[in-house]
Amino acid sequence: MEDRVRISILMDYYKELLTEKQKDIMELYFNEDLSLAEISEITNTSRQAIYDIIKRCNKLLDDYEDKLKLFEKSIKSKKNKEIIIEKLTLLEKDTNKKECLDLLKEIKVNIIDSI
Amino acid sequence: MEDRVRISILMDYYKELLTEKQKDIMELYFNEDLSLAEISEITNTSRQAIYDIIKRCNKLLDDYEDKLKLFEKSIKSKKNKEIIIEKLTLLEKDTNKKECLDLLKEIKVNIIDSI
Repeated sequence: MEDRVRISILMDYYKELLTEKQKDIMELYFNEDLSLAEISEITNTSRQAIYDIIKRCNKLLDDYEDKLKLFEKSIKSKKNKEIIIEKLTLLEKDTNKKECLDLLKEIKVNIIDSI
Repeated sequence: MEDRVRISILMDYYKELLTEKQKDIMELYFNEDLSLAEISEITNTSRQAIYDIIKRCNKLLDDYEDKLKLFEKSIKSKKNKEIIIEKLTLLEKDTNKKECLDLLKEIKVNIIDSI
């Protein structure tokens, strides 16, 4: 996976563990796609300091993932969810009872909402 | 929930974010149920320092939960899982086709393994 995409995903999981300033700069760089120069101007911080903060935050996010593995677990969970949905679809094809079809539909919603 | 139980559960989610020393002391206190005096002796650290570390770690664990809410999410997920299992059990009662029963059993295993 491209490093930029990976860091952007790790931000979804761990950004709350960063300081407000770190979070703002990382969002401007990875989500708003601004350049170091632009972020430097907006935040009134030197270009070098912005670069250092981004580098440090990349390392922090990687460390959090090494320790908590929330992204890795979410990939497994997503795959498992797809397998369950496939099996529920097989069951749907095998029945024409309205109450069973309704229940299967409800279970699909529960599974998509959860996990 | 009793504070001691809550901290012990938060340790399951966030202990990897503590230092080795913090983790060891918290495990001795909350999981092995040793006294401050016993931990002080084992770790060759003053009783007051052990007390301070435990107090600081309790605060750290609460802060991590405030930010990431892994414990809160796991409670919701567990409830949702129970609801799904109940619905699958209703479907089981409604069929006697072997292939459907097998699929339902498989889905239950997938759900228990995941989420």
